[in-house]
Amino acid sequence: MADNRFSYEGMKALSETVFRRYGYSEEEAREITDVLLTADLFGIESHGCQRMTLYTNGITKIGRIKRDRKPEVVRETPVSALIDAHEYIGQVAAMMATRLAIEKAKKTGVGIVCVKNSNHYGIAGYYARMIAQEHLLGVSMTNTEAIMIPTNGRQALLGTNPIAVGMPAEPYPFLFDAATTVVPRGKVEVYAKKGLEIPADWAMDSEGKTSTLPRRVLDDIGKKQGGGILPLGGAREQFGSHKGYGFGMLVEIMTGILAGGVTSDEIRKRFDCDRCSHFFLAVDYGMFGDREETERRLSAYLNKLRESQTAQGAPCVYTHGQKEMLACEENLRRGIYLNDKTLEEITALCRELGLPPETYLIPVPQEAPEG
Amino acid sequence: MADNRFSYEGMKALSETVFRRYGYSEEEAREITDVLLTADLFGIESHGCQRMTLYTNGITKIGRIKRDRKPEVVRETPVSALIDAHEYIGQVAAMMATRLAIEKAKKTGVGIVCVKNSNHYGIAGYYARMIAQEHLLGVSMTNTEAIMIPTNGRQALLGTNPIAVGMPAEPYPFLFDAATTVVPRGKVEVYAKKGLEIPADWAMDSEGKTSTLPRRVLDDIGKKQGGGILPLGGAREQFGSHKGYGFGMLVEIMTGILAGGVTSDEIRKRFDCDRCSHFFLAVDYGMFGDREETERRLSAYLNKLRESQTAQGAPCVYTHGQKEMLACEENLRRGIYLNDKTLEEITALCRELGLPPETYLIPVPQEAPEG
Repeated sequence: MADNRFSYEGMKALSETVFRRYGYSEEEAREITDVLLTADLFGIESHGCQRMTLYTNGITKIGRIKRDRKPEVVRETPVSALIDAHEYIGQVAAMMATRLAIEKAKKTGVGIVCVKNSNHYGIAGYYARMIAQEHLLGVSMTNTEAIMIPTNGRQALLGTNPIAVGMPAEPYPFLFDAATTVVPRGKVEVYAKKGLEIPADWAMDSEGKTSTLPRRVLDDIGKKQGGGILPLGGAREQFGSHKGYGFGMLVEIMTGILAGGVTSDEIRKRFDCDRCSHFFLAVDYGMFGDREETERRLSAYLNKLRESQTAQGAPCVYTHGQKEMLACEENLRRGIYLNDKTLEEITALCRELGLPPETYLIPVPQEAPEG
Repeated sequence: MADNRFSYEGMKALSETVFRRYGYSEEEAREITDVLLTADLFGIESHGCQRMTLYTNGITKIGRIKRDRKPEVVRETPVSALIDAHEYIGQVAAMMATRLAIEKAKKTGVGIVCVKNSNHYGIAGYYARMIAQEHLLGVSMTNTEAIMIPTNGRQALLGTNPIAVGMPAEPYPFLFDAATTVVPRGKVEVYAKKGLEIPADWAMDSEGKTSTLPRRVLDDIGKKQGGGILPLGGAREQFGSHKGYGFGMLVEIMTGILAGGVTSDEIRKRFDCDRCSHFFLAVDYGMFGDREETERRLSAYLNKLRESQTAQGAPCVYTHGQKEMLACEENLRRGIYLNDKTLEEITALCRELGLPPETYLIPVPQEAPEG
């Protein structure tokens, strides 16, 4: 298989079947699958089907994802709710929270829902977009296992702590989704695999020096004795390191602190326990002005950005969400890409569950490349 | 005068008198003064008394700050309000908005107030801290005259667009206040004055190339024909340029787009008209858990960060707000620092208004430096 691309529908049926087998309801399996596959459709391979076995292992072998108690609303006001996920699978807790935030925003104008004791919830952007699809402004954040070094520090005490923001616009919605570290861990892993050095402002080793050696850094991160990835802005205040660190802190406050959960430095302290926290905000911008007019003004501004003059050598000015929407169209047409390792893992998973891989992994014939 | 440091009380009396003379009420003059002087106390000289004549010129000579109509609430719900500032002085509109956000958060749990058609409101952190002092989580943002180049672009279409977040903690509150550009314009000006080159990832010239020449960049910015300051993360996606650009966009959406005002590219298009927009959010974290316990957990986490191991050669790990609180103590004791140019401008302003400078500019005798 030269291109490893498989039909979206087949992958969807496979993922839903897999999670049904692990005891999730039809609706839950559909929700988990949609979060996973949306990452693949958006071209965020790292958070897509590549993680399927991470979740299934998390459920069975590691026991990080518990199934004995469902997520539960433990506090509620007309504008807010706190959900205790009871270590259930993160996507289901996050979907419940997002729906609740939407419902509250439609009634009162705003909904803020915090979730504690959860598990990895997939791409932050999924939930921001889900809110935006209801013609509301959506924000989603999560803290994660500690990997970010605070400015001037050498110990990882914050997570990658992504922030996602979504709002409807034409022809592409605004959808911003970014880790507050300069790069995600996956980027460092890619450099390690290729045997390349990483740029000096990406990571720090356990001795408190910035390092260009990806294997050294990954090794130090694994041992948790110092070292990690630097904040957006790198190591130096001169380039705004304290700002990236501040955005990481904003996420810690909105998630672990507000929810009464744990901060990133306490996440996954035991291998069988994650306990991350999430934050969801939905705002009805119709409170401030005509909803359609507001969307039109955003669309016009995004358009102005896309049509603006480019830097020398740059292809074009993108707006956030544009690349994801274009990737989505392409990946629906050309099929979901699975790298060799993921394909192998998923095939093994099928065998383990007695599912015929060829029923689900349906290759999509590729057109000859253009030009 | 070797050290140019003047009594806080004298400076306060001076500023209040000046703004009273320009027709503001006692309360308004007190508000404007507190925002200005808090910047000086926090050590943010660029936004303090150095700007006093910018405001007074804005009122009289330039006419950017109008006085014919006061800020007015034009839309309101139990959780939100929209204020039209009618181009009144920004600090007064922002104080009104902040008070309203606090009041709503105390009643309903959350308050979101947007302001349109405003003027420069001083430091964003002032309002976030004002909310935090009420034991609420505070967020404040503003768009500003366009100066940020979007990733891959060469035209400045976003402002410096600061974001500030505040929450109470002991012994220092959490107070994050950062422009979403890699540096503020003032930093480039300092390099120009000193005849130094700027780092390559700070700014771009009108030809769409990153530039190390601060005078060239400032000149291009002034002409508005391309060129400006880069987003946090610099010019390249490799270092997260698209993330800084995304945070800048978050501010545009929360301010100009939500408020029905203008985006940064339309701010100050005429020299006598600013029209920036602000955003204020107050959240009662008591909705999610015990308020004091939440603050204790934040304090403990901040403490853990400050006590963590440092990078080689780094003095210590700071938490956001710590430097400002330490500077505040020092500047109250040692007096407000005015550079020669600011001292000259303020003395001239006193003469213009018939105020005896020596009554207000009271030198503070400095202790011999320690050690």
